[in-house]
Amino acid sequence: MESLMNSAEEQQHSSPPGNSWSKQEEINKNETPKCVGGFVLVHAGAGYHSESKAKEYKHVCKRACQRAVDRLKAGALAAEAVAAALVELEDSPFTNAGMGSNLNLSGEIECDASIMDGKSLHYGAVGAISGIKNPVLVANRLLSEAQKGKLSAGRIPPCFLVGRGAHDWAVGHGIPPCPSEKMATKFSLSAYKRNKRKMALAEKMDTGHNHAKKRRQSSETENGSGCLDTVGAVVVDSEGNVAAAVSSGGLAMKHPGRVGQAAHYGCGCWAENAFNNPYSTAVSTSGCGEHLIRTMLARECSAALQSEDAHKALLETMQNKFISSPFLAGEDRVLGGVIVLRCCRCVESPPSQNIQGILVEFLWSHTTESMCVGYMSAQDSKAKTHISRLPPGTVPGQCLAIEGGVCRLSVAE
Amino acid sequence: MESLMNSAEEQQHSSPPGNSWSKQEEINKNETPKCVGGFVLVHAGAGYHSESKAKEYKHVCKRACQRAVDRLKAGALAAEAVAAALVELEDSPFTNAGMGSNLNLSGEIECDASIMDGKSLHYGAVGAISGIKNPVLVANRLLSEAQKGKLSAGRIPPCFLVGRGAHDWAVGHGIPPCPSEKMATKFSLSAYKRNKRKMALAEKMDTGHNHAKKRRQSSETENGSGCLDTVGAVVVDSEGNVAAAVSSGGLAMKHPGRVGQAAHYGCGCWAENAFNNPYSTAVSTSGCGEHLIRTMLARECSAALQSEDAHKALLETMQNKFISSPFLAGEDRVLGGVIVLRCCRCVESPPSQNIQGILVEFLWSHTTESMCVGYMSAQDSKAKTHISRLPPGTVPGQCLAIEGGVCRLSVAE
Repeated sequence: MESLMNSAEEQQHSSPPGNSWSKQEEINKNETPKCVGGFVLVHAGAGYHSESKAKEYKHVCKRACQRAVDRLKAGALAAEAVAAALVELEDSPFTNAGMGSNLNLSGEIECDASIMDGKSLHYGAVGAISGIKNPVLVANRLLSEAQKGKLSAGRIPPCFLVGRGAHDWAVGHGIPPCPSEKMATKFSLSAYKRNKRKMALAEKMDTGHNHAKKRRQSSETENGSGCLDTVGAVVVDSEGNVAAAVSSGGLAMKHPGRVGQAAHYGCGCWAENAFNNPYSTAVSTSGCGEHLIRTMLARECSAALQSEDAHKALLETMQNKFISSPFLAGEDRVLGGVIVLRCCRCVESPPSQNIQGILVEFLWSHTTESMCVGYMSAQDSKAKTHISRLPPGTVPGQCLAIEGGVCRLSVAE
Repeated sequence: MESLMNSAEEQQHSSPPGNSWSKQEEINKNETPKCVGGFVLVHAGAGYHSESKAKEYKHVCKRACQRAVDRLKAGALAAEAVAAALVELEDSPFTNAGMGSNLNLSGEIECDASIMDGKSLHYGAVGAISGIKNPVLVANRLLSEAQKGKLSAGRIPPCFLVGRGAHDWAVGHGIPPCPSEKMATKFSLSAYKRNKRKMALAEKMDTGHNHAKKRRQSSETENGSGCLDTVGAVVVDSEGNVAAAVSSGGLAMKHPGRVGQAAHYGCGCWAENAFNNPYSTAVSTSGCGEHLIRTMLARECSAALQSEDAHKALLETMQNKFISSPFLAGEDRVLGGVIVLRCCRCVESPPSQNIQGILVEFLWSHTTESMCVGYMSAQDSKAKTHISRLPPGTVPGQCLAIEGGVCRLSVAE
């Protein structure tokens, strides 16, 4: 465990009525130096969270933050901590990842997950994987195996595995298989039945209509209503390394073999230590996979966050490179959300004490009705959680909410 | 067929000795206006091409160009023409795509392919697909289905399918299955046997050595020697729309389920009509999938090509964002190649005749020992082909070759 001191300075932001995003507003300020080991921001999905579901989502975010912080306090680097947070999010039956994932058209669970380590810039991903309780652990294992260098006979280790091959690789690397039926929940099974009925009804109504109409009819599956619930996390560790991860059961009633943004490089997550840039950045995305793929949203956010004002940069990216993206010109509703953090080394005041710090700015933004987030720094006794909602009267997929805060990690040298 | 007039102006580039890339050097100039319908540039792999293989590779490039031009002359848009070129490249038993693909660790063929349409900015991809003769046709069908809008019950159509699900979707959409054993060739089967022996030998030699050594030992599979041979094409049609496609059997002896850059958005191909940019660009990549994924080379090239000097932009991208990329810091040899084209509207001289033209600049660059390319505009009677080689004495994976030309498509209004 590094001997770090922290002075937390957090900003909490609420949505002013009549404005599609909230202004930064400083609420808490606590300059007391404490021992820390980093910071984590998680989310349990950009989608729609009823009041009744809110409590569960907040609980799982809290537990995920605690898991990451436990690892950070034990000296883990960012990639290990972010994977630990994801395991907790996957294990919740309420999220659309790991346990309780959406069922596909055939009634099966196929998961996507990926992880990126900002220090090594290595990346691991699995797509359409079945029978593994924690897909993020397979992605993380791919990442760590690739860091070891070439395989026998000069073969290059894979960074992305899919389907049966991914499952077999995982089991061959000591990750235990999990019977698929154990991963379905009462909730996911009943949602599948409802969706099946909706599809049958929609297709019946279309009989006699032309093909174009069929393609545009409005009876929607539960994804169409915004139940997306992909999960993700971003972490900075005590050395200032960043990491990001994402995991998803994918869209309900997706075609078997469909891979979403959670397994797509640059689309589901991104993490890049500063190197030649002013900031280290980490991003994780959630929402409609095809929209997030085609706009490559994670990497776009990361690149934008190199400009001076993080809040403005994220706002403009969500507006210009997501909602109004030329890549989604034909889409009436662009559904998604992101969590981001960026950090840089800074000198604590008074400079005479020679205390170096890490300034962490963290934000979330979404075009879905709501997004549930949690965040915690290693000196906090428990995580803060929050359900961010679009302002009343705004239209999901066309407007956005943006909120965030600041946390300072201090390093006594 | 559009009533277009062409004045071809081509630049052929050869590698001056002692220089790791060639200088632009104008050879042919033909200002005679002819009727045209676009331009195609294809490649049959960045890797190593012996003199004995050169003839076959040139032949297949020639046929692929002819196929695309036939479609363009029949009034097809860029996406359809680029898919037609890819089918020809996949059907050759000599390329590592479709028929004759590399076998994986289990002795099976699993293919990756993707296509991007610069006009709609839609994209389709398949990964680790078996039992389909032309994977690019599945990618193209995914693209065209997605362009039709939502599926029943508001479901979003997939842009990326993998494995068994991709195969079943293809067959369900009228693409005939092909028994896998028919896709293997005498050559791919004997390469598999040689690679198996090399792996067994390498692993035997490692007995008693430590793990780190095992990971670094040098007896390489045929991919390690540079036999990569992924194929690709870029097209501009008579309306100035661009499209790009890529197809690959992947690395020899890859793990089942491994997906390479050919199925990865932004990594295997990229196409983007001008819209707000000065240039329309199309890119297709070849080489070591993991290197091309982690550097997102197709999209990086496309973005760089918006700067004024295309040759300089591509050269700098290959040097700074590929060979010396911080994303590949630990790699001793960075193997890959790209074909690119960019085009813009221009006014023909004399301007009094009100003749609008499309200026097409096309280039290829590779860090592998060689790369076989072909190109043709719709008014040419046959395609030109060329095997580009690194200058003698340079090291593959550390140096590059870059060559290209210019073609002017004239539109009589």
